[in-house]
Amino acid sequence: MESRYLFRINKEIVGEIEKKVSTPFYIYDEFGIEITVNKLYKVFDWVPGGYKNFFAVKALPNPQIISLLHKMGMGVDTSSMAELVIAERLGIVGEDIMFTANNVPKEDFEKALELGAIINFDDLSYLDFFTKEIGNLPELVCFRYNPGNLKEGNDLIGKPTESKYGLTKDQLFKAYAKSKQMGAERFGLHTMVVSNMLNVEYLIDTARMLFELAVELKEKLDIELEFINLGGGLGIPYKRSEKEVDIEIYSKSLKYLYDRILKNNNLSHIKIVSEFGRYITGPHGYLITKVLHVVEKYKKYVGVDASMSSLMRPALYGAYHHITILGKEYKKEKEIYDITGSLCENNDKFAIDRKMPVIIVGDILILHDVGAHGHAMGFQYNGKLRPAEILLKKDKSIKLIRRAEELKDYFSTIVW
Amino acid sequence: MESRYLFRINKEIVGEIEKKVSTPFYIYDEFGIEITVNKLYKVFDWVPGGYKNFFAVKALPNPQIISLLHKMGMGVDTSSMAELVIAERLGIVGEDIMFTANNVPKEDFEKALELGAIINFDDLSYLDFFTKEIGNLPELVCFRYNPGNLKEGNDLIGKPTESKYGLTKDQLFKAYAKSKQMGAERFGLHTMVVSNMLNVEYLIDTARMLFELAVELKEKLDIELEFINLGGGLGIPYKRSEKEVDIEIYSKSLKYLYDRILKNNNLSHIKIVSEFGRYITGPHGYLITKVLHVVEKYKKYVGVDASMSSLMRPALYGAYHHITILGKEYKKEKEIYDITGSLCENNDKFAIDRKMPVIIVGDILILHDVGAHGHAMGFQYNGKLRPAEILLKKDKSIKLIRRAEELKDYFSTIVW
Repeated sequence: MESRYLFRINKEIVGEIEKKVSTPFYIYDEFGIEITVNKLYKVFDWVPGGYKNFFAVKALPNPQIISLLHKMGMGVDTSSMAELVIAERLGIVGEDIMFTANNVPKEDFEKALELGAIINFDDLSYLDFFTKEIGNLPELVCFRYNPGNLKEGNDLIGKPTESKYGLTKDQLFKAYAKSKQMGAERFGLHTMVVSNMLNVEYLIDTARMLFELAVELKEKLDIELEFINLGGGLGIPYKRSEKEVDIEIYSKSLKYLYDRILKNNNLSHIKIVSEFGRYITGPHGYLITKVLHVVEKYKKYVGVDASMSSLMRPALYGAYHHITILGKEYKKEKEIYDITGSLCENNDKFAIDRKMPVIIVGDILILHDVGAHGHAMGFQYNGKLRPAEILLKKDKSIKLIRRAEELKDYFSTIVW
Repeated sequence: MESRYLFRINKEIVGEIEKKVSTPFYIYDEFGIEITVNKLYKVFDWVPGGYKNFFAVKALPNPQIISLLHKMGMGVDTSSMAELVIAERLGIVGEDIMFTANNVPKEDFEKALELGAIINFDDLSYLDFFTKEIGNLPELVCFRYNPGNLKEGNDLIGKPTESKYGLTKDQLFKAYAKSKQMGAERFGLHTMVVSNMLNVEYLIDTARMLFELAVELKEKLDIELEFINLGGGLGIPYKRSEKEVDIEIYSKSLKYLYDRILKNNNLSHIKIVSEFGRYITGPHGYLITKVLHVVEKYKKYVGVDASMSSLMRPALYGAYHHITILGKEYKKEKEIYDITGSLCENNDKFAIDRKMPVIIVGDILILHDVGAHGHAMGFQYNGKLRPAEILLKKDKSIKLIRRAEELKDYFSTIVW
């Protein structure tokens, strides 16, 4: 089988959806998402203070998915007004919301405060900005640490020293001292230095850095953190040659460090939280698209009815997405194709020089691992419309959770 | 002055707009656009068969701009259903529309046929597809030539041999012969091998290639082209160190080639058309954004209220846009800043290590040369909303031509 996860997308299900919605469309597999959530929570059940993931809404900002995850015990990691409003409208409030934003507009801080969200401050100057422009500092504050040269970052997120996020170590200690002075009583610590990371040592080393900071904060400022937010960045294997992160090893290593560093310093009440998004939904999203044309120029091209407006990652990052053909999953890969959309951009290609079974007009292609940063990053360039989203429920029933855009949506802000 | 064009954006005008619309917003300068259009038409007034530009709608798909350009004598270059519908709703029909699309859905061909557009076929196989799925071939057909190794392309558009567009030379001759056999009576030829090109020799060489093909088509197939579409690709100088294309030299060189190649072969009835977009509106668009925060981490950051959701080019292509500060145009550049938006993407930066006058919170920054592929490429990632568009008319009055997005727009397709 082409997928390392339970793969439930078959001709019957696609046929059922096509009665209601035309291709292209996204499918998210509730069953797969639940398995991943349960696995994650299970490996972290050792944390004395408790473990919780705040799902990074930006990865898949569909309210029905967010609601599903909330019912499974997740909070939401938000970064904008729209994401805060999604939480509010779903009845997710208070400390189920982490608000981690940079270059924050006043209104967004106001909304976060109104909802009682945990506010994760991105800059030392925001303390004054907040109390001057918004209101009293909340009882619970969190700061985003930017370790600078201590961590390397990666291509997706850049070097920490070149990064617009967070506080330097010096600023961080000033921020805790100052916020305590300003009345804050409960404290969190956060960092986010890497995106889509498959190297578990890197992730563990980040945790070690934060744990050691917790001890230092206790020693220097007499501040006992309530939680440590490990950030996101837990990667998924897009290429079939890549290995999944072994989260049991990740968790066991964290436990070893937690015991050695935090417990030994009487800090075992500290909660561990994370803001994994991609890891939770990434592998369980599929973009279903139909072949419109198969043509030959200097190379062979398969043109599908989705384009980069539906999925930007290949064009934006040169990202790889695995592609299978519905009903031809076991056919021999005989041809080399570029798989393209119809935008007037030559980077509107889902795959370049991909070895595939023979493809004909009308074939249904399945783009894998698009459950995070997929639909969310779509645009409308060239007048292209963004596709529908479907939830494949555990009982195999299907539910439309976002309708496809229509021309009226594209024209909605125009003054004719 | 910071702009090489007539620069009409001043405190008075921005203040006037801010009474109606909050930052960020786009301003397009009607006066500047008109000057550019007149200049272009003037230098090409020598073409015996006539010259016409079909504005590339994708560059700035605002109906009021399109309408303005149409009144100045331009056609529209379209590539999707939405762009065809814009033309239709503005009453632009028939051979004022060029339809140049690749991997074309059936419905788009149907619409183009219905509107009487000039259809520019991207593949030999589309002739059969068209007659089988859509209807009779139009009397006038055009084909997009992909010269393969004969042209180099550039970074923005890629190598022609790696490009999904157009017909090889062999396919091109087959296509003309076949379409003639199928009843076509009038013919056009098109290519588009480069984007944002400032090297006039490259552009001239492309024209030479097409002129020579016209002669070859006459000799081999007894087909006399009605028009040659030089494509787009006429660049603009984004950096202040770059030089504007001298379109007089471009035009004079074309005239020399036209006389020598076409006229000498009794082909001087051939119209010259182009599909310039960026050249027409690019320099006359400005993104106006306000400074929210100035912070210092490992570097100094200026955070503005626009983000890459308003302007993707810097993040997507590493593109340079000149930035000035309203009212501080003549101040000394003393500081080095990264100018950032508030997206949770570290590539959400409009400038990196840019030397600027000292910037304070509340300053208005002007991003220059965003009149093409600016607003059009915006997305809503992170729940960010796309900004309003304003037309600065010749008499300095202002007109809202697109309202800013609101949360209701962001939520419009969601099934809650």
